[in-house]
Amino acid sequence: MKVSELGEFGFIERIKKILESKVIGDDTAPIRVGDRTLLLTCDVLLQDKHFKLTYPPTAVGWKVISVNVSDLTASGGTPLYALVSLVLPDMEVEFMEEVYLGMKKACEFYRCEVVGGNVSKGERLCIDVFMLGETGRFVGRRGAKRGDGVFVSGTLGDSRAGLELLLMEKKNYEDFELRLIEKHLRPTARVDFSKHISKYANASMDISDGLSSDAQKLAKASGVKLSLFSERIPLSQELLTFCKKYRKDPLYYALSGGEDYELLFTHTPEKLNPFLSMVQIGVVEEGEGVYLDGSYLEPTGFDHFKVL
Amino acid sequence: MKVSELGEFGFIERIKKILESKVIGDDTAPIRVGDRTLLLTCDVLLQDKHFKLTYPPTAVGWKVISVNVSDLTASGGTPLYALVSLVLPDMEVEFMEEVYLGMKKACEFYRCEVVGGNVSKGERLCIDVFMLGETGRFVGRRGAKRGDGVFVSGTLGDSRAGLELLLMEKKNYEDFELRLIEKHLRPTARVDFSKHISKYANASMDISDGLSSDAQKLAKASGVKLSLFSERIPLSQELLTFCKKYRKDPLYYALSGGEDYELLFTHTPEKLNPFLSMVQIGVVEEGEGVYLDGSYLEPTGFDHFKVL
Repeated sequence: MKVSELGEFGFIERIKKILESKVIGDDTAPIRVGDRTLLLTCDVLLQDKHFKLTYPPTAVGWKVISVNVSDLTASGGTPLYALVSLVLPDMEVEFMEEVYLGMKKACEFYRCEVVGGNVSKGERLCIDVFMLGETGRFVGRRGAKRGDGVFVSGTLGDSRAGLELLLMEKKNYEDFELRLIEKHLRPTARVDFSKHISKYANASMDISDGLSSDAQKLAKASGVKLSLFSERIPLSQELLTFCKKYRKDPLYYALSGGEDYELLFTHTPEKLNPFLSMVQIGVVEEGEGVYLDGSYLEPTGFDHFKVL
Repeated sequence: MKVSELGEFGFIERIKKILESKVIGDDTAPIRVGDRTLLLTCDVLLQDKHFKLTYPPTAVGWKVISVNVSDLTASGGTPLYALVSLVLPDMEVEFMEEVYLGMKKACEFYRCEVVGGNVSKGERLCIDVFMLGETGRFVGRRGAKRGDGVFVSGTLGDSRAGLELLLMEKKNYEDFELRLIEKHLRPTARVDFSKHISKYANASMDISDGLSSDAQKLAKASGVKLSLFSERIPLSQELLTFCKKYRKDPLYYALSGGEDYELLFTHTPEKLNPFLSMVQIGVVEEGEGVYLDGSYLEPTGFDHFKVL
């Protein structure tokens, strides 16, 4: 049987069985060392898949650190140390120096440090980052409770719109278009939510594959139904302008567009923090699956092996 | 400037400068968490470079765990947890299940656990493993002292001979040939040395790129000269038989062949442990570079970017 017949997540289920693991399946793996809860995570950026060599290299470096910090944040944690494993073609050293400069700036911003790594030669650039973090209380995808509110940390769909704009390779971009492109190229992990998640959330993950797919994963892991309301999903002014200009449906971008790196989490509806840009987009109910305005919502986000 | 103009290790020096890092450069990165010294390391196996899809998949899984444990052992540590980051073509799920079975067996042997990872789609299989370990005392490459003995943990050159035999794709192999092939396919990290290294070694690393290259790195990092004696370098009966049969020079294999995953370490010559297969192959002196029987020894081992 081919991996594509199972899809990315079916494949992971098979691997979990082989490893007889009960812990695999969250954004990060929590481990106890002494009296501390540490978090391990990894995420990769692949040339021609997640980025092109025509992108600003500092943005590539910034992003690969950010996507890892995003996973730690979703678990209620903060980053400590990173390793960078490179598969590297015989390319310009200066390009890679800029990539590392972007990583360094990101590490300064997130207060963590690259302490090592590995270099192998290959045909396409592959930047694999491993990160160690820490949390006071680990939050995974499995704890959503009936009666919880479903929250997101910010506007969705911007990154996908930014990617499409990038791929148009236009000579001139409008200001709002440049802001969308920036969201795609240099996402910022929502570290401002880390304490809130760790303190209050019952379940949490970051939205990297698109809301419809990621909500499905959270619902499945928690054994609950998520009822979402489309008019509550936060959309940026930039995305609305983009959709008007190019005659697109903003809801489609919010539901299916990936790489937003906003957070999706649940807790009792009362625990609103006015200092955070959190928006309640739904409720947790008994049952299974994800529903939008009462209708079953197909997961239309990203699956590495089920792309048409 | 291209990476190949700098070589793998010149490239790493440039990256260290960009990151302004004083810690990068050892097999593992030691970090303090509470009152514990943890170790972070990563190492990758790439399809068609480190293995072929015709290899037994359990051996590939065993090896990718072993090479990481080897780095931890070289630092005087033991493994705790691993993450597996896969770049995966649309291949047979059963092959990958066997790879994971090999990883599981290795983890059981080394007493560690795969707790998570990541899956991305790509054209060639890339298995990147990140490992967290622990040590009572970290040992790096920098501490070799004048007067130290230079030791290795076992015979060198077997893996390279095994690889050449594999690539011959013979219909029938002799017993000694199968044992050499096994050394290449299923290396075992020298975890029996971990306590000895942590207790006594001033400098240590594993021999993954070949003795001549790795000794050079240790000498450079420690700011010392290593004087080695060729007749002291341990060679297996299998390698000697191989070299006789195929008219090869066993010393060449011991010096230039990589992937032995034996340990190279230095400490006062008196600290011999009769329960370990350690052999003194030289002494640490004032100066720089590596000398074999009094002549300067060129690093002829593996460099990802300086392959002819």
